[in-house]
Amino acid sequence: MKIYEARTAPNPRRVRMFLAEKGIDMEYVQLDLAGGDNLAETMRSKNVTTKIPFLELDDGTCIGESMAICRYFEETHPDRPLLGTTPLQKAQVEMWQRRVEFYFFLAVGMCFQHTTGYFKDRMTPVPAWGEECGKNAVAFLDTLEQHLAENTYLCGDYFSAADITLLCALDFARVVKIKLQDQHANLKRWYELVSSRESAKA
Amino acid sequence: MKIYEARTAPNPRRVRMFLAEKGIDMEYVQLDLAGGDNLAETMRSKNVTTKIPFLELDDGTCIGESMAICRYFEETHPDRPLLGTTPLQKAQVEMWQRRVEFYFFLAVGMCFQHTTGYFKDRMTPVPAWGEECGKNAVAFLDTLEQHLAENTYLCGDYFSAADITLLCALDFARVVKIKLQDQHANLKRWYELVSSRESAKA
Repeated sequence: MKIYEARTAPNPRRVRMFLAEKGIDMEYVQLDLAGGDNLAETMRSKNVTTKIPFLELDDGTCIGESMAICRYFEETHPDRPLLGTTPLQKAQVEMWQRRVEFYFFLAVGMCFQHTTGYFKDRMTPVPAWGEECGKNAVAFLDTLEQHLAENTYLCGDYFSAADITLLCALDFARVVKIKLQDQHANLKRWYELVSSRESAKA
Repeated sequence: MKIYEARTAPNPRRVRMFLAEKGIDMEYVQLDLAGGDNLAETMRSKNVTTKIPFLELDDGTCIGESMAICRYFEETHPDRPLLGTTPLQKAQVEMWQRRVEFYFFLAVGMCFQHTTGYFKDRMTPVPAWGEECGKNAVAFLDTLEQHLAENTYLCGDYFSAADITLLCALDFARVVKIKLQDQHANLKRWYELVSSRESAKA
């Protein structure tokens, strides 16, 4: 099996880090997004949204969407669970994973796409929306700061896929100049803890 | 336990339909979103994002995000699984659920918020972005139409939470005048099949 990705994009890093935590070796195929590799018909037939990363199984079945790929490996490699163990913990991981995705990662991504015009050959940038997304992403950091004042990781003492999503989103946020500030003492403590994991180099 | 929601909003319907499929009875507490019930400090302390629905367990623990609530009940009530059974099927449900969410439901929701100004007291509408989202949502219907030409449900013969998300999103899309058209024969066939389920009335 193999994963099609682009090394510098933030979503593929989530999957690489997830697999590194589980000790799963993987073949990675690099696609040049700016050059449109992912838009080619051969790729579109494997992965209709043309988004990366996507996983191709040995029988040719393809799975797109980062969290769907993670879900697959959580099920096939249940050791070192990253999506929770009890019903409540599984729900909490899903909750924080999605909160980080919708209110921070997605906002950062749209800020990048709409203010830089990086993909303007394949979408219509709306700069005013990009600026609004940047403000919303920054505002959500205060929510996370408050939550991490009382939690080691996003889900209490349990390191999970939600932390992976936040780390990858925070590192990517630098491209739109969103960084942790002095008032984010707990986020900075969390960042040191999570970014020092071996898997963060994946 | 109880779920805080608003009867006419699309996300709570996803959860009600999911619970109806599983035969789970639930107490629902209605919040007046336009009146700002969800923004009150008592609600914010339970659910920091102020989004609905959210679940309050009997011990006071709260779970926000529709899919996190569904995940909780999938784990506590595994009969009649709606999030898949095998690793591959679980990944496929997650994949289609997320595709429908990101490329259709979210686009419809932003089209509504940014073109109508419904929540303009608590966000900054960007009408040009709302219009763009409407176009993107309509375009994604063609992707779904193509997929449903070869699949009974979004995940083959398996009715899943992904179908629930699409039904609730499609019904909500009427508020921004996005409806199935003549070229959507397979989507219409799918819509008849899914909307005729007893749970669709939930």
